[in-house]
Amino acid sequence: MKKRQLGPCITFFPQPTTLIATCNAAGDVNLMTASWVGIVSKTPPTLAVALHQQRQTYENLLATGCFTVNLVPASLVVEADFCGLKSGRDTDKPASSGLTLEPATKVATPLVAESPLNVECRVVGEHHLGDYRLVLGEILEIHATDAAFDAEGRMDARAFDPLVYLGGIREYWSLGEKRGDAYRDGIRLFGDKTGQ
Amino acid sequence: MKKRQLGPCITFFPQPTTLIATCNAAGDVNLMTASWVGIVSKTPPTLAVALHQQRQTYENLLATGCFTVNLVPASLVVEADFCGLKSGRDTDKPASSGLTLEPATKVATPLVAESPLNVECRVVGEHHLGDYRLVLGEILEIHATDAAFDAEGRMDARAFDPLVYLGGIREYWSLGEKRGDAYRDGIRLFGDKTGQ
Repeated sequence: MKKRQLGPCITFFPQPTTLIATCNAAGDVNLMTASWVGIVSKTPPTLAVALHQQRQTYENLLATGCFTVNLVPASLVVEADFCGLKSGRDTDKPASSGLTLEPATKVATPLVAESPLNVECRVVGEHHLGDYRLVLGEILEIHATDAAFDAEGRMDARAFDPLVYLGGIREYWSLGEKRGDAYRDGIRLFGDKTGQ
Repeated sequence: MKKRQLGPCITFFPQPTTLIATCNAAGDVNLMTASWVGIVSKTPPTLAVALHQQRQTYENLLATGCFTVNLVPASLVVEADFCGLKSGRDTDKPASSGLTLEPATKVATPLVAESPLNVECRVVGEHHLGDYRLVLGEILEIHATDAAFDAEGRMDARAFDPLVYLGGIREYWSLGEKRGDAYRDGIRLFGDKTGQ
């Protein structure tokens, strides 16, 4: 496949689209749109968020030590993009976006009610990277929309309708079709002589 | 929205599906399927990979200090899942999966030729998290499939056909439809009195 060299940059995808909720010392809630978010450990369950150290959210994380990660469904693409364009320093983003806050169960930071998946985290460490900070959060609780579960407790991805972010291309996309099952489909290649 | 509590776990998505290529000291190439991969800094351009410390890939990263991240297109779902099921300790995964390796330009680790986006990285740090290691890589070069570019140099996401991984649900999905443009669509809410 013929390829073009882009140099060192940050073109990378697919990524999640999330809203990071934090509070300042006075309890004012801020929402930051983030795609540099992901799981980094299973034992203990840990999630990492990367952000510029001048963000209001970073100041809030240092002040309160907790945050929630709220998955953005495709239906809220405008609200999520708005929260990425405005700063919490001069905008009350929960009010201006029209999103609803509800209490979390393990941390003082609220959840975004319209989000189909919410992750409650306690800050357990950070790593400095130039102007950026990688903040590590122990996962204390996860809330998933009840509509996603069937009678056997299996989750249907379509109920979450997660908004996928393409970094570098700067586009938001929805999910298309299921293409396979992890930890199963690859078994087909076990028959290969060298794969055994 | 009614929600169900899952407790502390690692149900989180959407995530990228990638193959991490590394070499051991003898130069043997290993491919590890990874979804815990993402950008963590723009200045300097940095990517993080999280993995269990007993993985062959972690041993290789310590031995050689470099790796490549190769985006998996939806057409290679079986090959990618295979590389996640087998260990490099007893399987030559490049040979068994049928994937093709080609030289990188800045690091000794090869690229996966069939991948539409390859990221070359040099290890610049790590962070310990229980049994897991978060390895930080400075991005040295990115290669993108030439078929994605139009005459003005814009990239078409469909040419990459990225495979999206849903952690917790354990499913692979393709992209569906474009739902919006980042840093633009949210401007619609600026008209709101409180949003100015």
